[in-house]
Amino acid sequence: MQITILAVGKSLSSDLQAVASTYEKRLQPMAAVTWKLLPASKTDDQDLSRAYESKQLLDQIKSNETVILLDERGTQLTNEQFAQTFHSLAGNQGKLILIIGGAFGVNEELRNRAQFVWSFSTLVFPHQLIRVMLLEQLYRTMMVHRGHPYHHV
Amino acid sequence: MQITILAVGKSLSSDLQAVASTYEKRLQPMAAVTWKLLPASKTDDQDLSRAYESKQLLDQIKSNETVILLDERGTQLTNEQFAQTFHSLAGNQGKLILIIGGAFGVNEELRNRAQFVWSFSTLVFPHQLIRVMLLEQLYRTMMVHRGHPYHHV
Repeated sequence: MQITILAVGKSLSSDLQAVASTYEKRLQPMAAVTWKLLPASKTDDQDLSRAYESKQLLDQIKSNETVILLDERGTQLTNEQFAQTFHSLAGNQGKLILIIGGAFGVNEELRNRAQFVWSFSTLVFPHQLIRVMLLEQLYRTMMVHRGHPYHHV
Repeated sequence: MQITILAVGKSLSSDLQAVASTYEKRLQPMAAVTWKLLPASKTDDQDLSRAYESKQLLDQIKSNETVILLDERGTQLTNEQFAQTFHSLAGNQGKLILIIGGAFGVNEELRNRAQFVWSFSTLVFPHQLIRVMLLEQLYRTMMVHRGHPYHHV
């Protein structure tokens, strides 16, 4: 499995990076995770930021690639439902792009480009914490798919 | 504000503790957070574990105390809705107990004891990560309540 995660913003703080690395190591035998961090827009204008960051993200996606976008306004799933969606979208090639947008979300064009828009919660979490939460969910998804007891603990 | 968090399980790993400490420091001027960690049940039997851990948790709660239980089967709220619920439940005394149950959840008796059962997500997250997510949400709640721009970033 080859997973590329596109995210907007700075590198993780060293504490969060340490937690993220734990999950990346556990994922390694099952999935290679590549991060691409794009710089956040420098303007305070929400619409301009959203447009700029969405354009930068769209530029990273090739036409034949499959995209899951993380967005509060997306669909919430149980872990079992997500494991099914994830593996079905990854297909035989086992390739997927996951996107975590910037502080003001992404535009309609990027939302429409995504094959699936996934919401973790009605709550907002910091984008840096979301990165760690995502890695844990990816690991969990692999475990659910394998019927491994991790998910029940 | 005085917040007591009851949780089942071991202390956080040092990496997660470092992230948790960041949020606790930010919370400190607004809320004193006290953790009480109760040992997880040693049996593998789900029903026995749930009963044992729920009893331990219930024994920590005084009759006049107000309790918010975190549970996947609870109600999901937006940050604004939670800020309102949180401050209204904390009341004039500004005191609340928050509970994160064990691996197999809690029993009906404890669910019924809680004034509010709050769900973060349809997804399951590790109980250790939930502790950090909860601290961040408590900080966010204070910021929402004060109309501070943190919530929008």
